Amino acid sequence: MNKKIVLHSLAQIALIEAGLMLLPAAVALYYGETKTLQVFLIVAACVAALQVPIILLTKIKDTDNMNFRDGVAIAVSAWIVISLFGALPFYVSGEIPNFCNAFFESISGFTTTGSSILTDMEALTKGMQFWRCFTHWVGGMGVLVLTVAILPSDKKSSSLQLMRAECPGPTVEKLVPKGKSSALILYVIYAVLTLIMIIFLVFGGMPLYDSVCTAFGTAGTGGFGIKNAGLGFYNSAYIEGVVTVFMIMFGINFNMYYFIVIKRFSDIFKNSELKLYLGTIIVSIGLICANTMAYGVYGSFSKAFRYSSFQVGSIMTSTGFATADFDQWPEFSKVILVLLMFIGACAGSTGGGFKVSRVLILVRTAKRNLRKLLHPKSVNVVKSDDKSLNLETVHGVSGYLIIYILIFFVSLLIISLNNLDFTTSFTSVTTCFNNIGPGLNKVGPMCNFSQLSDLSKYTLSLDMLLGRLECIPVLMMFAPSMWIKKLY
Amino acid sequence: MNKKIVLHSLAQIALIEAGLMLLPAAVALYYGETKTLQVFLIVAACVAALQVPIILLTKIKDTDNMNFRDGVAIAVSAWIVISLFGALPFYVSGEIPNFCNAFFESISGFTTTGSSILTDMEALTKGMQFWRCFTHWVGGMGVLVLTVAILPSDKKSSSLQLMRAECPGPTVEKLVPKGKSSALILYVIYAVLTLIMIIFLVFGGMPLYDSVCTAFGTAGTGGFGIKNAGLGFYNSAYIEGVVTVFMIMFGINFNMYYFIVIKRFSDIFKNSELKLYLGTIIVSIGLICANTMAYGVYGSFSKAFRYSSFQVGSIMTSTGFATADFDQWPEFSKVILVLLMFIGACAGSTGGGFKVSRVLILVRTAKRNLRKLLHPKSVNVVKSDDKSLNLETVHGVSGYLIIYILIFFVSLLIISLNNLDFTTSFTSVTTCFNNIGPGLNKVGPMCNFSQLSDLSKYTLSLDMLLGRLECIPVLMMFAPSMWIKKLY
Repeated sequence: MNKKIVLHSLAQIALIEAGLMLLPAAVALYYGETKTLQVFLIVAACVAALQVPIILLTKIKDTDNMNFRDGVAIAVSAWIVISLFGALPFYVSGEIPNFCNAFFESISGFTTTGSSILTDMEALTKGMQFWRCFTHWVGGMGVLVLTVAILPSDKKSSSLQLMRAECPGPTVEKLVPKGKSSALILYVIYAVLTLIMIIFLVFGGMPLYDSVCTAFGTAGTGGFGIKNAGLGFYNSAYIEGVVTVFMIMFGINFNMYYFIVIKRFSDIFKNSELKLYLGTIIVSIGLICANTMAYGVYGSFSKAFRYSSFQVGSIMTSTGFATADFDQWPEFSKVILVLLMFIGACAGSTGGGFKVSRVLILVRTAKRNLRKLLHPKSVNVVKSDDKSLNLETVHGVSGYLIIYILIFFVSLLIISLNNLDFTTSFTSVTTCFNNIGPGLNKVGPMCNFSQLSDLSKYTLSLDMLLGRLECIPVLMMFAPSMWIKKLY
Repeated sequence: MNKKIVLHSLAQIALIEAGLMLLPAAVALYYGETKTLQVFLIVAACVAALQVPIILLTKIKDTDNMNFRDGVAIAVSAWIVISLFGALPFYVSGEIPNFCNAFFESISGFTTTGSSILTDMEALTKGMQFWRCFTHWVGGMGVLVLTVAILPSDKKSSSLQLMRAECPGPTVEKLVPKGKSSALILYVIYAVLTLIMIIFLVFGGMPLYDSVCTAFGTAGTGGFGIKNAGLGFYNSAYIEGVVTVFMIMFGINFNMYYFIVIKRFSDIFKNSELKLYLGTIIVSIGLICANTMAYGVYGSFSKAFRYSSFQVGSIMTSTGFATADFDQWPEFSKVILVLLMFIGACAGSTGGGFKVSRVLILVRTAKRNLRKLLHPKSVNVVKSDDKSLNLETVHGVSGYLIIYILIFFVSLLIISLNNLDFTTSFTSVTTCFNNIGPGLNKVGPMCNFSQLSDLSKYTLSLDMLLGRLECIPVLMMFAPSMWIKKLY
């Protein structure tokens, strides 16, 4: 790893974050929140000032080439750095007086998890609420993708290494050959969709400020809100409907939207990940509708449909908004939600979880294995859409599953030290590791994470980071060979 | 699949079972339980009579060769057939008046799960208690292994196909070239160990009848007992110690005992599965000791050690005896037990679960994958002891993991229809699928499974079968091509 390149890039990213803090500062100014305004300006100035010497001391020469290891090192440390700096406004202003809590809230924002330690989010100032929701929007598409899109391109190779390190999933294709153009296209799609959503919400009578914050939380599939009652506050089927549709849209691989732009519709219709994603959503809504109505939770079909579709969309896309206390639903519905938490959204979307495409590859691998046992001499190839996947990819996904399970179990052990019940321990790891937000029981949608120990909060913070970066890059940081400057 | 061979073998196995029922009949005779004696004799006679026409109608010719598919078909249907017939004594005698419950108890016995629907097992007659425990002993080493060992050998190929179908795990080596000899060696080791255990128990003051039943439950890593208070009834640290040691011994790959007999000690000391197995047990005991003492569950170290070592040995080997209500332990200890449930015992032992050797291969695969990412051009081979595993084996284990998870999730969904809590649903599937016995909460060690719906009981019965036969053979039965007579 080339420490100079890493430090230089980190400083650039921190500078961008300092710049981003001017937005909540403007909001604070508009609402006349002087103290909040001061906090954001001071924090932004300090963060920026800290970067200047670093950037000056680590001048990059033309001969400095970024390789995959550097990209990984930058990706992992960048997410930690922005979460640390992002926690400062909460902490310095005293609105979240405990640093561990502030960090938890910040990393939960950037990783678009949406788990909170706040009992009363309406007590925050408008500027601080805005910053909290804005972290979702920034983290949703990826901090490095943003960097690549904003900064004057250094080199084509660098931007590709960075984007590869941040999205190591199996199916993130490059949209166009140049990394910088890909990043820009992604951000334009992202911004346009967010804007359309805001317009829809304002049209439904939601105040502009609320609409912007809600759209940030939806677009990043994050889940932070600004009302203690969540979206139920507005008590509007229209608003819930809009959010449901957009949550599901942001859980779709962004390549699909690019295909719409360049009119490659056939690629959309034959995409099996999309089919499985939408199919799972429809089946889950149907089952939960039937189950909740059978237990008399909702009197009418329209009510059952409204609440089940919102909750399914929210959980499957890892957003984590809640309009119903699904912890009170019958057990069958709760188990469906827990399974959806693991499946997650599509690869290449802002959503988290294990990802639908990986589930698809795993199911096909399992089928192939069974076929192989029945017909030992036949050649069985695992196919993903038109391409037949090579053994290395299949193997990689299986390997990912193993790592995923190991991390899950270790986290579960640490969280169980709180001596809460099994359901709470199990679902708090599930929800943080898959970047969702609420779990069941003591971390259910009407509760929060403040009761956990500091050790648990840091563990869950690490889980959020592991989940957001899909484990591998974070684990690579622990390999000694990462820290040696490459000689060849 | 050659239906004639399958039917013929099934009839032979049923005949053996009818013969085995004479043992509890003898016990009933000794204790003067006339009604129980009659039940066993009548059931045995009927089962036997049913097989005669089948055996006569399906004469096997020298040209009839058994292939792997036939072996699989025989293995799966044999386990269902013996469980069905094995349920008859409970049902016919009226001691378990509901057939679904009787079948659950029977399959739980043969698969050595040890989950029970009985609230009062002391109400059973001595003969029936004996039969219940004896099913563990028969199922422990495998019904087909027994068949191969007992029957006059037809062909070498047949016995190997049968044993392969019943134990599809990755590391069951043949001990000697001939299948029949392997089966005999395994059964001799099994019987000798059981006998030694009975002697140790009788020496500790346990009545002979109790000792035999307890040894059956331990040897098969089953868990059925004859006292409502379990082994706590005897209130003897010596007896608990003996059972702990033997549980752990029966969870070790039986090849190790054969190595002792033929003095290949080096193969034992460098066996990494054994090391990981014993290491996990020691670490778990240590952690649970510390955790339970910290929460004041046990006042002294000796007490904490006594109860934690027994429970760890019982759960890790999938036996399922309990001397403490571990559902009352602090959450950290409970989570350790749940993790142990998944890991299970060594391959080639009588224990269940995912198996230590599979965990080992998975962890090594994960390590290899990470290394591959860091050094893309290097050749990385997954090693298991001295042999480097080929990609197909590694792939097979990963494939098994996927199938395991899929089955787990589907079962969890079905069980959650009972609308009990998440912990109960989750651990009841865990405990049945891994052939352990008790779970947590409403299926904890001091509770039973009678409260579940019939649908759940049949689902859990299928899970026990899937777990015992390690999924693949059972799933193969659902493939249409299994049912076509092989032409080539």
